[in-house]
Amino acid sequence: MPENFADRLQAAIKSKHSPTCVGIDPVFAKLPAEISENKDLNDETDSEIALDAVLEFCRRVIKIIAPYVPAVKINSAFFERYYWDGIDGYFALIQEADKAGLIVIGDVKRGDIGSTAGMYAQATLAEPDFANLDALTGPDAVTVSPYFGLDGVKPFIQVAREESKGLFCIVRTSNESADEIQGAKLESGLSVAEHVAQQVETWAKDDGLIGNCGYSAVGAVVAARNPDEVVRLRGMMQSCYFLVPGYGAQGLTAADVAPCFKSDGTGAIVTASRSIIYAFDDMKYVERFTSEWDKCIEQACKDFVAEMNEVVQV
Amino acid sequence: MPENFADRLQAAIKSKHSPTCVGIDPVFAKLPAEISENKDLNDETDSEIALDAVLEFCRRVIKIIAPYVPAVKINSAFFERYYWDGIDGYFALIQEADKAGLIVIGDVKRGDIGSTAGMYAQATLAEPDFANLDALTGPDAVTVSPYFGLDGVKPFIQVAREESKGLFCIVRTSNESADEIQGAKLESGLSVAEHVAQQVETWAKDDGLIGNCGYSAVGAVVAARNPDEVVRLRGMMQSCYFLVPGYGAQGLTAADVAPCFKSDGTGAIVTASRSIIYAFDDMKYVERFTSEWDKCIEQACKDFVAEMNEVVQV
Repeated sequence: MPENFADRLQAAIKSKHSPTCVGIDPVFAKLPAEISENKDLNDETDSEIALDAVLEFCRRVIKIIAPYVPAVKINSAFFERYYWDGIDGYFALIQEADKAGLIVIGDVKRGDIGSTAGMYAQATLAEPDFANLDALTGPDAVTVSPYFGLDGVKPFIQVAREESKGLFCIVRTSNESADEIQGAKLESGLSVAEHVAQQVETWAKDDGLIGNCGYSAVGAVVAARNPDEVVRLRGMMQSCYFLVPGYGAQGLTAADVAPCFKSDGTGAIVTASRSIIYAFDDMKYVERFTSEWDKCIEQACKDFVAEMNEVVQV
Repeated sequence: MPENFADRLQAAIKSKHSPTCVGIDPVFAKLPAEISENKDLNDETDSEIALDAVLEFCRRVIKIIAPYVPAVKINSAFFERYYWDGIDGYFALIQEADKAGLIVIGDVKRGDIGSTAGMYAQATLAEPDFANLDALTGPDAVTVSPYFGLDGVKPFIQVAREESKGLFCIVRTSNESADEIQGAKLESGLSVAEHVAQQVETWAKDDGLIGNCGYSAVGAVVAARNPDEVVRLRGMMQSCYFLVPGYGAQGLTAADVAPCFKSDGTGAIVTASRSIIYAFDDMKYVERFTSEWDKCIEQACKDFVAEMNEVVQV
């Protein structure tokens, strides 16, 4: 396997012929009845039992999707919700996904200054450095908040450089009020998000971060809110792989996310979360597979891959 | 005790006659020799043993400072660094600080969109809602990242409203590269930080958040980087209590942070972290107390309170 994170990511995308990622953000109330109604798992009021149900579901999801997509994004918040046991479970899933040959992105959106950022980089991205945890593996990459500027991101970059890991700086999000801050216009004519994009590109080009594929271990989270903006952001961050949220449940289609890619089909990986992992609630799949929830998820994953293949060939 | 978080915070400040907070961000390598060289605790390579040492230190610090300051800020990153056991320890310290009568601020700097922000609000701010964790208490307030706009902050505001808790939105940080993004100038003439400040003030004035003291349960993290800017931010966020980092080890003095307060001495709480908890490394205290590290911390805490009292009387 190539060492640089962008090279590893691109190799994984090419080997699956698909620039796709499944996002795992599990909620007990939405689990398939087969799991949540299992008598050993059916107690949402007990954090350990509820977490066991959630983890059982996530393990199954990872197995189902692993043949089709190159990467998973595991959303830390949905595990932190179960306190210390949740963190244990979050890391257990990282191990599962890693063993299944997937690139693992820890969606932690951490950010802080100086020594605190260093602690977060160690806690969320680096390989654990304790003798008693030497069997534990960290994720391949994490999401990072850029509001503090370079010195809040530097410790993550240092881990990326030393341990061949990656990070995706949050540049543009898909939520309704994202414009309140990200869309504010600067004197320079750029939006705040575009200004952040310029900073991220500078960070991405720093020594030792660009891989053989031409992309950096420092990437960007870019929601495809409007095509013109995506084209500008793509132009501004030539060195950055884009992690693109918002597909499916958040309303974006393959055509919407197409401008996140360069003309050679590289440069982005698109994430779908709820539209895949809760496909057993989607009539389109229920009509076909009834209560076979795992088949619903598998088909939704295959459809996601096929839809993306119509606009990008890798 | 009054219910609204700002009222509770102000009452705590008045009862201790001091608008101060001690920040707890412990690093094993900096622990007092008495703790780190204790044979049961002296193994930095084992996460459980190292964490035990860190927690022993933090428990002692909380006891030492509790008579002098109204609040502690516990920095999540320094506990996340010990994985699931670290989260367990972080919550154990919240319980200790709560029992010691302190206002507890969880410095977690979380931020995300929609359902994920909801999970973070539940995980980091709300009272635990599991039957098996009913003895567990969450912090009184947390720090929150505003880059996603209102809908990333709303779930925290909802918990604040429903459970009489608080949040401090990060507006201005004290680090060297903070200006890269926070200092960018908008068409409107405002900096990005000032624009964020305006948003935060709007959020702070929403229904049911303003307490009898006139301040909101939604506050702001404001580093006192330069006096003119602080005066502008103070003017823009009339409803917000300021949580002010940067005192002591980061170089700020009582005079520097004075403009964070309104003329009646209310409206801010100043945090000192390393200058207090590592006072036993400061020659000023070592000369006086030699190896009595707890006395160094106590004296540094008393000095902090006294220095602040020279510029603000409450």
